[in-house]
Amino acid sequence: MPERQYLYKGRILNLALQGSYEIVEHAHAVAILVEREGQILFVRQYRPAIGSETLEIPAGLIDPGETPEQAARRELAEEAQLTGELEYLTSFYVSPGFCDEKLYVFRATNLRAAFAQPDDDEDITIEWRNPRQVLREARDGQVQISASAMAGILFYLSERGLESPVVDA
Amino acid sequence: MPERQYLYKGRILNLALQGSYEIVEHAHAVAILVEREGQILFVRQYRPAIGSETLEIPAGLIDPGETPEQAARRELAEEAQLTGELEYLTSFYVSPGFCDEKLYVFRATNLRAAFAQPDDDEDITIEWRNPRQVLREARDGQVQISASAMAGILFYLSERGLESPVVDA
Repeated sequence: MPERQYLYKGRILNLALQGSYEIVEHAHAVAILVEREGQILFVRQYRPAIGSETLEIPAGLIDPGETPEQAARRELAEEAQLTGELEYLTSFYVSPGFCDEKLYVFRATNLRAAFAQPDDDEDITIEWRNPRQVLREARDGQVQISASAMAGILFYLSERGLESPVVDA
Repeated sequence: MPERQYLYKGRILNLALQGSYEIVEHAHAVAILVEREGQILFVRQYRPAIGSETLEIPAGLIDPGETPEQAARRELAEEAQLTGELEYLTSFYVSPGFCDEKLYVFRATNLRAAFAQPDDDEDITIEWRNPRQVLREARDGQVQISASAMAGILFYLSERGLESPVVDA
């Protein structure tokens, strides 16, 4: 493989060419699945990159020096004012054709209140929603969801399958 | 929102600043879930962006003028030499904090052989694998998976849940 020629080095990403490949280097990220009585904790926020609101789950970039679990604990406190026991579920590359961002997904249980200062530049709303309903709305284009939300929803459903009722609350 | 100031306009992506946001504009993409006797069709390939092989499912960018379904049909033929009936499952943004790439996920059924010229620059291998096994290997870091593979695996499992045996073939 030829060396990477950097075209831009920025705050959260770098852009490089490697041979004919356009490559974005991006910080790794975490997302946290939080469940309660048949609902998942979603985060609604406006995303300038897509010019629209999204439904995501609590998530954020891993800061330098942090482990994925430390980042997950920090983000859960900042975004949802919650803490608990964290279980690592899986990780995946969001779009490995051009980008090296890896997303680590955790589940939080035994929840209790936490107090953390939200990021200044984040304007988010917390919503407890039925995951099957959100998945259906995403399919029909009524809401825009992130890979983090999709992973959280499908993890939730994959562990229940036919066990839980098909009808929505 | 301030206007986007473009720093780079390239082949598959553009880089822009919008106020303090670093934004990557990227073509939308499709991925296709193909199931057979408890296994899913995976695509193994080397990805320069992450410097590693990945397990993904058949996937690719939507060409200008194509619908997501047309792109899915083309990619399934090019990468797996298969065609069939396509069912739209869901769509999501892979990393909406910085990127506008949306991934549309389809399922292909009633499969039959198709003949299409693979992309010159793609060196891929087709693997039928047990989705639970791949999910476990991804969690343990033994394989690197994409968001497309994760969506395919979890869709597959969410529809089966406890119906299918927990043990792996």
